[in-house]
Amino acid sequence: MSEIDLIAWFRQRSAIGGQVPLGIGDDCAMIQPSPGAELLVTTDMLMENRHFLLGETTPTVVGYKAMAVNLSDIAAMAGIPLAAFVAVALPRGAAVDIAQGLYEGMVPLAERFGVTLAGGDTNAWDGPLVIGVTLLGETTRRGAVRRSGARPGDIVVVTGPLGGSLASGRHLHPQPRISEALKIHERVPIHAMIDLSDGLASDLGHILTESGGLGACLRAEAIPIHPDALKDGQPIGRTSLDHALRDGEDFELCLTLDPADWARLVADPIVGVALTSVGTITAGPGIVIEQADGSVEPLTGRGFDHLEHRAAS
Amino acid sequence: MSEIDLIAWFRQRSAIGGQVPLGIGDDCAMIQPSPGAELLVTTDMLMENRHFLLGETTPTVVGYKAMAVNLSDIAAMAGIPLAAFVAVALPRGAAVDIAQGLYEGMVPLAERFGVTLAGGDTNAWDGPLVIGVTLLGETTRRGAVRRSGARPGDIVVVTGPLGGSLASGRHLHPQPRISEALKIHERVPIHAMIDLSDGLASDLGHILTESGGLGACLRAEAIPIHPDALKDGQPIGRTSLDHALRDGEDFELCLTLDPADWARLVADPIVGVALTSVGTITAGPGIVIEQADGSVEPLTGRGFDHLEHRAAS
Repeated sequence: MSEIDLIAWFRQRSAIGGQVPLGIGDDCAMIQPSPGAELLVTTDMLMENRHFLLGETTPTVVGYKAMAVNLSDIAAMAGIPLAAFVAVALPRGAAVDIAQGLYEGMVPLAERFGVTLAGGDTNAWDGPLVIGVTLLGETTRRGAVRRSGARPGDIVVVTGPLGGSLASGRHLHPQPRISEALKIHERVPIHAMIDLSDGLASDLGHILTESGGLGACLRAEAIPIHPDALKDGQPIGRTSLDHALRDGEDFELCLTLDPADWARLVADPIVGVALTSVGTITAGPGIVIEQADGSVEPLTGRGFDHLEHRAAS
Repeated sequence: MSEIDLIAWFRQRSAIGGQVPLGIGDDCAMIQPSPGAELLVTTDMLMENRHFLLGETTPTVVGYKAMAVNLSDIAAMAGIPLAAFVAVALPRGAAVDIAQGLYEGMVPLAERFGVTLAGGDTNAWDGPLVIGVTLLGETTRRGAVRRSGARPGDIVVVTGPLGGSLASGRHLHPQPRISEALKIHERVPIHAMIDLSDGLASDLGHILTESGGLGACLRAEAIPIHPDALKDGQPIGRTSLDHALRDGEDFELCLTLDPADWARLVADPIVGVALTSVGTITAGPGIVIEQADGSVEPLTGRGFDHLEHRAAS
């Protein structure tokens, strides 16, 4: 199968219509945004030996994850995903098999969330696999939720248990919280939101910085810890709580709400959406953590630097 | 400089506002399309040792070209470019210098065409340089020009001289024909258009296929041959005309027009836009070439297969 055959294969399987009147097969794809909506755009690149090892996983899993992490970014703005563009550098020799594997991983997830595979760029080279996905979405009538909208007194909420994602392999199968974000935002105004890719300590830090230098007080006992972070074999000297705060790649959402709105959600929960209050936004700056005994300590930050990080798994 | 410093550096230099109310620094960027416009999206990936050699060129040139080839795709739809998203895999060690070089190449071109650098993904790895640019644009009131609108009897027009681009290094400095496309489309309806990345023979073939299996008759004497294709040192056995038809990477536009509209453009040329009629659309299928002596031969196709092509220059 040549590149032209492969693109024809993709194109046959790409469902054009509705808001994507033109997809693969022209110089550009065309997207018809809903009247009054704003467009949301995010892009993430996954690289072999850096974000995954092809000896340990399959192209299908890589395709799934590449789509999922972008969906998670659209979720973090409370957006509706629309169309994906996929650029790949394929290892020569296995190029067609890998391309088809990536596709098999992306498409079921794309279809589940109403995303059209609308275009891309397919190349082979004498190098490792690289996949870059750019995902377009649009806002609902409630508008986008930014990182910058947190206010002192807000309740800090997360959508799921945290920690142990990389060690368990869960990071390869994230569940984008698109419908959760839309359901919450439909019910109450979300002030600020981010998806948890680098860990709660780091990602909540982004909300605080973007919201003008606020702080947060987290309650240690309230942080929902994933069973993966409770398993044996975790590095010595790190508590399960520390894993929940810092491991990253959970792809859950962290959001802040007015306390009255949080009370409303507690009184009348949204079916299928598990939410946990983990603390409060303060005038800050900085994040502190309150232990069960009432003692309060600063949570020292530890940024996740993608330029320096060497792990690949 | 860490990743966070680098992103802060990009962000400071990213001019947000107007149609891009939110750029770098959140989970997604936000784009405000003009009311009634359709969005155009294109993506192209350039890979070290495949599309360029860092020993022979600089990151600045690579950044320029990565932006330019995407602009050329927006030009080919007669679109107005809006915002770019840049994902990079940077060779570790030189990551920050290369990132800044790419940026210095992209920004002047982006500014020239009103493009905001609105987001991206910055990674380092133990691999070669990869840059993926996704460019968003929008249609004017005249709508997008597709490949599929050619009609028998249309005049086939190109915007510039062709051939010798790769051999001369001209392919690293393409001039996106954005304003040319907009000016022509404002004056007369363009039926079909494509940018010349793989060569006139191949790219005109795409217009013919997408337009329902039409053909074309090209006049050999009319093809504008670039001086680069006339130089000594070209491979033996290939004529300058063959270079003009097949070399690719010219990034000029090929368009088809109603003969009456072409006559209008000839009678009243657009200032700053050089156009050449090279032939006519026929009921086809297939492209034939008419020599000066009136003889007509089929132009045998030679597809450019990105999965198989091994040249890197």
